[in-house]
Amino acid sequence: MAQNIYDTPEFFDGYSRLDRSVRGLDGGPEWPALRALLPDLRGKRVLDLGCGFGWMARWAISQRAASVLGVDLSENMLSRAKAETADPAVRYLRADLESLELPHETFDVTFSSLALHYVEDFARLVGEVFQALASGGHFVFSIEHPIYMASTRAGWMATKDGGRTWPVDHYAVEGPRVTDWLAKGVRKQHRTLGTTLNTLIDAGFTIRRVEEWSPTPEQVAAQPSLADELERPMMVLVGAQK
Amino acid sequence: MAQNIYDTPEFFDGYSRLDRSVRGLDGGPEWPALRALLPDLRGKRVLDLGCGFGWMARWAISQRAASVLGVDLSENMLSRAKAETADPAVRYLRADLESLELPHETFDVTFSSLALHYVEDFARLVGEVFQALASGGHFVFSIEHPIYMASTRAGWMATKDGGRTWPVDHYAVEGPRVTDWLAKGVRKQHRTLGTTLNTLIDAGFTIRRVEEWSPTPEQVAAQPSLADELERPMMVLVGAQK
Repeated sequence: MAQNIYDTPEFFDGYSRLDRSVRGLDGGPEWPALRALLPDLRGKRVLDLGCGFGWMARWAISQRAASVLGVDLSENMLSRAKAETADPAVRYLRADLESLELPHETFDVTFSSLALHYVEDFARLVGEVFQALASGGHFVFSIEHPIYMASTRAGWMATKDGGRTWPVDHYAVEGPRVTDWLAKGVRKQHRTLGTTLNTLIDAGFTIRRVEEWSPTPEQVAAQPSLADELERPMMVLVGAQK
Repeated sequence: MAQNIYDTPEFFDGYSRLDRSVRGLDGGPEWPALRALLPDLRGKRVLDLGCGFGWMARWAISQRAASVLGVDLSENMLSRAKAETADPAVRYLRADLESLELPHETFDVTFSSLALHYVEDFARLVGEVFQALASGGHFVFSIEHPIYMASTRAGWMATKDGGRTWPVDHYAVEGPRVTDWLAKGVRKQHRTLGTTLNTLIDAGFTIRRVEEWSPTPEQVAAQPSLADELERPMMVLVGAQK
């Protein structure tokens, strides 16, 4: 059973105030890059793993997707997602990504935003997604970058020359990383980028794109704090195809 | 024109003393993992980019490769490679990987060990390798990992808790990195792992394997200093196929 941190009141409260919760997809600076990895959604059956408040589900419908199934473990998030989604082509399912089972060849696109780094048994889930996709189907997701997550002391460090840098250690030591982000004791799963990609390849996917996301100069000009993301990647975006 | 650091006397002298120069392929701890990415070489036409002393060329012949072309820019290295290679199925060519041109569909396997991170125009070279490979041909290489190379202050840093960590900064800022390794002013080219993989994909390659190399427990037991490589990857090994 996965940790259900999103239903911890302090986490949910903090998460609800994030730009990406208030403004939706456009509140995530990586969204233009992630969207670029998606195929045209017209007529597509879309699966969203870790659908949260349902922003992606509603956007997919606006792009004329045929249907969307949003999956999440958080009751709080699904409750708001349902309240804010009117279209009957969107369904929501409460399920744990550690044990989710999916019917064969019933989706054209599987999407996931910043959820899969919470999943311990990634290989199992990737196998499930592969068999659930129709031939030629796309799997597009973002996760926290292992550079961001690896260190047991993750966080900016001052350098002797007055600058700052990001520590990387324990990179090859895969497994849980516990951090205090919005709430204490948030448990993430560190995997090397190689393991993430090889797991997809082993399941049968072809890797189409690997974006260690960094902001454009225009994004940095508009929001100077994004310059941090030039120093060390916080996210990696992956496009794969069955 | 690429920097020809291997013909700098102090660099060549230092390089010649490394385990991988004295003992050959088995002197590189990543060799078993890199070899595992190679197909059976029997009857294959092999190209080795940055062939150095010719260890790989001679090993390929021992694996019954049909022929090997070893390419390097260093006169010193090619001179020793030629002196130590008796088999007429091995040829050596002095050429700059920045401008190397290759005949179409004349190789089955392209190999490169720790050379391509010196190449500035990686996309040009990858395109050249792609058209030089026969359909189904393999491109297997190791490079320095961008985690190892990114920081302008690359090197272990002490942490407040008495440990040590590896700094990552300027990760998204691609381009030259100048280090003092064996000689002063060695110029490498930093690329994100995403760029390396996307360049291969854009050229038409399918990614078969991405290994952010780390030692096995047996290797660490035999050579404790290799434990460093669990903290941050120094090398990434890539297997791709046309």
